[in-house]
Amino acid sequence: MNKNYKYELKFKVRDYECDLQGIVNNSVYQNYLEHTRHEYLKSVGLNFAEMHTQGITAVVARADIQFKTSLKSGDEFVSRLKVEQEGIKFLFHQDIYRLPDEKLSIKAIITTVTVVDGKLQVSKEFKEAILK
Amino acid sequence: MNKNYKYELKFKVRDYECDLQGIVNNSVYQNYLEHTRHEYLKSVGLNFAEMHTQGITAVVARADIQFKTSLKSGDEFVSRLKVEQEGIKFLFHQDIYRLPDEKLSIKAIITTVTVVDGKLQVSKEFKEAILK
Amino acid sequence: MNKNYKYELKFKVRDYECDLQGIVNNSVYQNYLEHTRHEYLKSVGLNFAEMHTQGITAVVARADIQFKTSLKSGDEFVSRLKVEQEGIKFLFHQDIYRLPDEKLSIKAIITTVTVVDGKLQVSKEFKEAILK
Amino acid sequence: MNKNYKYELKFKVRDYECDLQGIVNNSVYQNYLEHTRHEYLKSVGLNFAEMHTQGITAVVARADIQFKTSLKSGDEFVSRLKVEQEGIKFLFHQDIYRLPDEKLSIKAIITTVTVVDGKLQVSKEFKEAILK
Repeated sequence: MNKNYKYELKFKVRDYECDLQGIVNNSVYQNYLEHTRHEYLKSVGLNFAEMHTQGITAVVARADIQFKTSLKSGDEFVSRLKVEQEGIKFLFHQDIYRLPDEKLSIKAIITTVTVVDGKLQVSKEFKEAILK
Repeated sequence: MNKNYKYELKFKVRDYECDLQGIVNNSVYQNYLEHTRHEYLKSVGLNFAEMHTQGITAVVARADIQFKTSLKSGDEFVSRLKVEQEGIKFLFHQDIYRLPDEKLSIKAIITTVTVVDGKLQVSKEFKEAILK
Repeated sequence: MNKNYKYELKFKVRDYECDLQGIVNNSVYQNYLEHTRHEYLKSVGLNFAEMHTQGITAVVARADIQFKTSLKSGDEFVSRLKVEQEGIKFLFHQDIYRLPDEKLSIKAIITTVTVVDGKLQVSKEFKEAILK
Repeated sequence: MNKNYKYELKFKVRDYECDLQGIVNNSVYQNYLEHTRHEYLKSVGLNFAEMHTQGITAVVARADIQFKTSLKSGDEFVSRLKVEQEGIKFLFHQDIYRLPDEKLSIKAIITTVTVVDGKLQVSKEFKEAILK
C-alpha cells in the first residue's frame, strides 16, 4: 500500500472496455474511479446502495481528469485514492498507475457533495466514516 | 413503418460503442434492443421506470440473439419489434436492419416475464397495453 | 441553433444509461460529450475512425466536467459545443442543457491534442477543418 | 475449480453496472461472459487483440442467455466455461454462479466462429489451443 494514499484497488483492463483505437475508452476511467470510491467507502463502513435507501446521496459535483498514459487491453493497474474535506465538499484525489511499471495513467480530482433528505449538506455519517 | 412489425426505432452507431475490432461490441446490441423495447412500451402507455415504482417489473428471462452483420462506426440502422404472448411469457421478436440497405444485422427473441408485487405473474396493465 | 456555440446535437436518455440512483451515470456524460465531438468533427469533414487509420489520433488530455443537474430516464437534452485553439491544445467547451426547459446539466472543458505519426503535434487537417 | 468446466474466473459486481432496478443490467452479463472467454483464450495461449492484428477474428454468431437469478450491487460471482466444437462452430457453455451460495445466475451458450483472412473457416491456431 502506497503511503501517500488512503486506499488502493487493483484492476485489469477488459477487452470490452477498449475502443476502436485499441485503448481504454475515456469514459471507462470514470467507471474505474467510481468503483474505487465505492469500494473505499465500503471499507470505511459506508455502503453506497444502502446510503441511497436511507436518503443519503453522495453526488459528484465535478470530475477533473487528466489522461496521462493510455491503458491497453490486458494491462493491469492500481487505482489509488486520498480524500480531504473543503467546506461542504469532499475532494477525492484519485490516481491510476499502470502495473508493474507504476507509470501514471490518470490524475483526477473528483469533487463530491452529500445530499441528505433532499438538501445539500454534509452527511455526518459520511464525514465521520471518512475522517476517522 | 414495416408491416411485419409493431414498432420501429432508428439509431446511429456511436464511436464509443465500437470495440477494438472497429465494430459494435456484442453487448451493445442488447442495449439497443432494450431501448427499443422500453420506447415501444412507452408508446403503448407503459413507462418502465414508473412501472418499477408501482411494484411491476418486466424481467428478461432469456435473450437469444443471432449476430448476422456487424454494424460499424457511423452506421445508421432501424430496430424493429413485434410481440406475442405465450402463457406467462411475452416474446419480443426484435430484428435490427442496417440502413439504407436493409441488410439484417441482428435477429433476436427476447423472452420477458412480469413480476407483480414480488410474484411471477402476468401483469394485467402490461398485457392490456401490449395486446390492444 | 444557439449563437454561442458552433454545433449542437439532440439526445434522449436511455434507461440502460441510468444507475441505481435512477439518474444518468456520471461516466455516461463523457459518452454523450465524445459522441457530440465526433459528430461535430464529421460535420466539418473529419472522420474519427478514418483519421485513426491515417495515423492521426485526437487524444483527450483532460476532461473537466461540472455536474449541474442530473438527467433522468426519458429526459431529452441538447449537447452544445464550441472550440478554441490554445497552443498545441484544442479546448472543446461542451455544455449539456435539459430540454425543453434549457436547464444547464453539464458544463465541461475537454482538452484535446493531436498525435500525427506517433508524435504530439498539431494536425494540419484537424486545425484547418476546425478553424474554417 | 469445478470439474464440469474447463475454466473459471471470479468477479465482483460494480455499482456502475447496476441499472435503475438496482440489479446488474442484462447487457453487462455479456461483458462478463466475453471477458471470461477472452481470459480463457489467453490462458490457452490465444490473445484476442493479437489474433485480430494477425487477421484472425473470433466472431460471436449467436448468444443464447438465460437469466436465472439477478446479481446485485456488491455480489461476488464466478463465471465458468467449457467449450465444444460442432463443425465450423465453437460452442462456449458459460454459466455464472453467485457466491458464496453457488446459486445459478446465468446459463448461456455462446456460438463462435473464426474468420481467417476475411473468410469464415476454422482457425487452426484457435482449434489447437482450445482442444489441447
